Amino acid sequence: MAQIEVGILGATGAVGQQFIALLARHPWFKVTWLGASQRSEGKPYREATAWRLPTPQPDDVSKLTVEQAAPGHAPKLVFSGLDSSVAGEIEGAFARAGHLVISNSKNYRMDTTVPLLIPEINADHLKLLDAQQAARGWAGRIVTNPNCSVIALTMALAPLRQFGLRTAMVTTLQAISGAGYPGVASWDILGNVVPFIDGEEEKFQPETQKILGQFKGGAVEPHPVVVSATTTRVPVQNGHTVSVSAKFDQKVTPDALINAFNCFRGRPQELQLPSAPPQPVVYLQERNRPQPALDANRDGGMTVSVGRLRACPVLDFKFVALGHNTIRGAAGAAILNAELMHREGIL
Amino acid sequence: MAQIEVGILGATGAVGQQFIALLARHPWFKVTWLGASQRSEGKPYREATAWRLPTPQPDDVSKLTVEQAAPGHAPKLVFSGLDSSVAGEIEGAFARAGHLVISNSKNYRMDTTVPLLIPEINADHLKLLDAQQAARGWAGRIVTNPNCSVIALTMALAPLRQFGLRTAMVTTLQAISGAGYPGVASWDILGNVVPFIDGEEEKFQPETQKILGQFKGGAVEPHPVVVSATTTRVPVQNGHTVSVSAKFDQKVTPDALINAFNCFRGRPQELQLPSAPPQPVVYLQERNRPQPALDANRDGGMTVSVGRLRACPVLDFKFVALGHNTIRGAAGAAILNAELMHREGIL
Amino acid sequence: MAQIEVGILGATGAVGQQFIALLARHPWFKVTWLGASQRSEGKPYREATAWRLPTPQPDDVSKLTVEQAAPGHAPKLVFSGLDSSVAGEIEGAFARAGHLVISNSKNYRMDTTVPLLIPEINADHLKLLDAQQAARGWAGRIVTNPNCSVIALTMALAPLRQFGLRTAMVTTLQAISGAGYPGVASWDILGNVVPFIDGEEEKFQPETQKILGQFKGGAVEPHPVVVSATTTRVPVQNGHTVSVSAKFDQKVTPDALINAFNCFRGRPQELQLPSAPPQPVVYLQERNRPQPALDANRDGGMTVSVGRLRACPVLDFKFVALGHNTIRGAAGAAILNAELMHREGIL
Amino acid sequence: MAQIEVGILGATGAVGQQFIALLARHPWFKVTWLGASQRSEGKPYREATAWRLPTPQPDDVSKLTVEQAAPGHAPKLVFSGLDSSVAGEIEGAFARAGHLVISNSKNYRMDTTVPLLIPEINADHLKLLDAQQAARGWAGRIVTNPNCSVIALTMALAPLRQFGLRTAMVTTLQAISGAGYPGVASWDILGNVVPFIDGEEEKFQPETQKILGQFKGGAVEPHPVVVSATTTRVPVQNGHTVSVSAKFDQKVTPDALINAFNCFRGRPQELQLPSAPPQPVVYLQERNRPQPALDANRDGGMTVSVGRLRACPVLDFKFVALGHNTIRGAAGAAILNAELMHREGIL
Repeated sequence: MAQIEVGILGATGAVGQQFIALLARHPWFKVTWLGASQRSEGKPYREATAWRLPTPQPDDVSKLTVEQAAPGHAPKLVFSGLDSSVAGEIEGAFARAGHLVISNSKNYRMDTTVPLLIPEINADHLKLLDAQQAARGWAGRIVTNPNCSVIALTMALAPLRQFGLRTAMVTTLQAISGAGYPGVASWDILGNVVPFIDGEEEKFQPETQKILGQFKGGAVEPHPVVVSATTTRVPVQNGHTVSVSAKFDQKVTPDALINAFNCFRGRPQELQLPSAPPQPVVYLQERNRPQPALDANRDGGMTVSVGRLRACPVLDFKFVALGHNTIRGAAGAAILNAELMHREGIL
Repeated sequence: MAQIEVGILGATGAVGQQFIALLARHPWFKVTWLGASQRSEGKPYREATAWRLPTPQPDDVSKLTVEQAAPGHAPKLVFSGLDSSVAGEIEGAFARAGHLVISNSKNYRMDTTVPLLIPEINADHLKLLDAQQAARGWAGRIVTNPNCSVIALTMALAPLRQFGLRTAMVTTLQAISGAGYPGVASWDILGNVVPFIDGEEEKFQPETQKILGQFKGGAVEPHPVVVSATTTRVPVQNGHTVSVSAKFDQKVTPDALINAFNCFRGRPQELQLPSAPPQPVVYLQERNRPQPALDANRDGGMTVSVGRLRACPVLDFKFVALGHNTIRGAAGAAILNAELMHREGIL
Repeated sequence: MAQIEVGILGATGAVGQQFIALLARHPWFKVTWLGASQRSEGKPYREATAWRLPTPQPDDVSKLTVEQAAPGHAPKLVFSGLDSSVAGEIEGAFARAGHLVISNSKNYRMDTTVPLLIPEINADHLKLLDAQQAARGWAGRIVTNPNCSVIALTMALAPLRQFGLRTAMVTTLQAISGAGYPGVASWDILGNVVPFIDGEEEKFQPETQKILGQFKGGAVEPHPVVVSATTTRVPVQNGHTVSVSAKFDQKVTPDALINAFNCFRGRPQELQLPSAPPQPVVYLQERNRPQPALDANRDGGMTVSVGRLRACPVLDFKFVALGHNTIRGAAGAAILNAELMHREGIL
Repeated sequence: MAQIEVGILGATGAVGQQFIALLARHPWFKVTWLGASQRSEGKPYREATAWRLPTPQPDDVSKLTVEQAAPGHAPKLVFSGLDSSVAGEIEGAFARAGHLVISNSKNYRMDTTVPLLIPEINADHLKLLDAQQAARGWAGRIVTNPNCSVIALTMALAPLRQFGLRTAMVTTLQAISGAGYPGVASWDILGNVVPFIDGEEEKFQPETQKILGQFKGGAVEPHPVVVSATTTRVPVQNGHTVSVSAKFDQKVTPDALINAFNCFRGRPQELQLPSAPPQPVVYLQERNRPQPALDANRDGGMTVSVGRLRACPVLDFKFVALGHNTIRGAAGAAILNAELMHREGIL
């Protein structure tokens, strides 16, 4: 099978590095173009980046010369790990120029014509792209994935929609890699908890409602779930833990909920996409799980682990969910989005 | 002023050491007796204990010989940091023998004739001691302090009772020192979160209801608040963080809540007890506080810090509370209890 | 190729779990027998063990019933991750009963007829097994691998023997997994350094001299290198860092040393053993490497990384070495030993 | 006693905050002036700084308005916690303008007419100030304190000069607070060791030789000790651990060395300076000490702890030293310098 060339926007940053690491042995996609800020332009990637991942930098990418983050030489498909301060403008420019932008940034997530895609949950939201073309007039398209902590939450909530999900009360314990590099100062987080992440809590309700929403009449109708979030940072490298309590319209049993988690499947499993985990949500029976150190890397970091289901005296049921924030919650999510689009014939 | 001699039960353990450290310069109490398990009996404390606190072991205590944890030579007032596996029997024996036992263990907390005392909140629960005498026929008495994470929660909730507190949804992020020594294995918690603490969540509703309850007709009538807790362990040395969302019967404003936190005072402040913090609950305006590393030691670790008050779309208001778990939540709490009893003429 | 059945002694412990994880997809060896202490006997492994590794427990091993740690039903080849308090007796019993014991314990390491094997360095020490048979009269044999921190050191020193290695001054920064489970209490190591590991420093000179020694006239003649070690524990999960300064009899250049590291190969590479890393010692040019978080897992954790070579004003040259302590330094080392023995026809 | 007004250069930085915290209740010095970069100019300190210390910001300092870091309104005595990128110029300007600058920066440390002062070790180096006046023609003066890790080392070595100290081989394990704020990224150091600190190792030999040197004929004659250092960063908040092996010209016993550590006293103890620790170097008998978490704060963080003395087969003796890097190794050191100068009549 001929490989599809892809470009990486924000190639030297934390998400960009993760894209490159995950794509190193991808069966379909091959990184052939790197875009980054002026500081890196013209340098071989090996020199332009301070590689901070435990997997080695792929040799063929090391030798690529970093280019300006502007359309021109990039292949049609570009993954964007740009910082939100510049992503709006640059991603827009690429879409206008005919590129298919798979973005990890927040800028276009809540745009009504941009899919906020989690392929297991809302593969049909890709139909929004027609509306996007109509509204924007771009030659290309933009598709986004959600915030890293919202992904873990919505992957756990999606299987529960069938029970009339009404409210979710959430406290997160988020890993430091979620803040990128250099991100969180060690002075602030070593042996500490920071009970605040700037701009994070506000994303929970709108992103969750859009992700869980239904595509109807050319638009996404938000799911009515009410979400209240407290987000905290903890001294963990990878893996966002989410403590959830939820209320349902229907009467529901623990067994039904556990069954719903374990049986949840979506389009990526149906299509057997390369990055699709065989079982996207796994319920763990051990009473002290999920844990970031033990469970974040399940199935290459693409599976969300859930555990500790029990009755909640205030709402209905409580549980704990966990997802790998830079894989399932960022680069891996975007790659799965691209895989879906390729198989759906959108690339 | 003549000093009051005190004994320490479980003197070599983590809570016992904390008692000894906090009492080193106490104006009223002087440690003159140490009781511990057989392994330590007959040894000078210096040799019997593996001191693990950053403050130096007091010289006069170092020289004391550790005795059997049985009544006989101990002074009237004993602080107990015994493990719950033995506390029930030993503390009972001391009470029977006429001692006043100030216990940090869980064994007698929910006994209807034993005060579960937080002096700022329920100093009048000491009146239960008459019922205790009647029911037990002990020559002495037992008074207990709550679980370390429940103390932080109830100190934050007590000022809010006036607004008709109805429900509290809680997720805790608890320090490893709460599990004693050796306690949590580093293999389990380094760079990790463990979303389970054995037996912890079950204590939240009954202890909170008893602490916030009213003394009426010779007994404590539990407060009707419904509490739902998820308890997690995080890699923090000292300081339990508690994420809380609460519902009230009355309409209430953020300013009224903040004012209630900051104006909360109790009997220890009135009596100016030696260990009483000037302001037992402090609301912090900074948007990223409270944090264990910065706030746990406020006023010698006896103040509970609260921050991040904001509306909750599911219940009414959310906030974050923090207390030092081995001081306000254990040894310091017990010492404050003893100070209150001394000034109330019960010693 | 027919698989060789292997047993695991100490199967429920930290090293035992690591054996099972590493052997899960081994091309030659298949775990069919598990031995552990009385507490676990008769239980399925799934229940007998508290699995603490991020890789999932292999299904076929989960179902095995744990047996008594005594000869009888075990296959000929057994890997031992037993604690040193019991390893001496049990491993001896297995050797007597005809088993080939590949031991990770310290008990037999310094026995003059027991190979202290690192296949890249001293594959010919296997010849000691004739002397072992003569001296012990066992039907089986015992082969050992060195202490986890000594392996990292000797892998880095072995390529330098050619320059007349005379002395090595060493300070280690060792990961907590080296102490097994529960091992180091989080109370002791969170945000801390413990500059002492019981019994560790004493092993450095004798083990290093034996490992680097020459097989001559039926015995190993210790290498004359003088080793001085300070061993410390740091809050790192996996990966022992070793700061080394060395003195040589010959005049030597940095380039010659770096070349020696990078060109070092041994019998495992020659035989292309399944667990053999392609380049057992890798010199990293980056000025801030090696680091446990980035380098410990190189080539499945079997490669030792070296960096920061520079002149030492007191001895001759300084550098930093790093090895994965539970893989290259324990279970992986033992498996490589067994692979070598299989290919050398000793199994 | 009338209080002496002092200014703080670099008041908003990590060292500046530590100066302010330590001076909050100083018996002689009162902070009345704050200088910082343009960004902070004109703001009340409360707003200009992101306070990151666990002790509360002193109220009187909170209200001070931050001024330009230029001479003009500052009191005669100024403490400087400026970054080395700007300290050279600004400290020079203050000295020229008649200020007494007590600097924590590296810029003037190796200037032959600037004292590199540790009052216990080389109080007589203050005599260099005459040469400074002659050479520079400044109306004021500059006095410096050493690098944070060099202080811990030299405090431990100074008592050993009497035995003919010849060489010291050093590996450090340094706390993250030594890098200031934001300093080390948590991504780099959480659960990790970084075996490199830019520019740090080079300081060890020259600073140590100057500090331990003798004032002779108007200049400091460097001590001949040869120092070889490897410096590493570990996930510890405060407290630099130093693993040392030393060689002496004289024959020496462990008892003599321990006695030398414990009996070491200097001018600050003689003058009973407010920040002088009663015993500047304390030898700990416990076999697993010193540890940052337990020993860094000894005597307010001004005492250096030493332990683990034992024979070294390569040099003569090995031991481990520990000092609080931001107190004894930075702000506290500078304050002790100022106290000495005040009592010596230099202010």
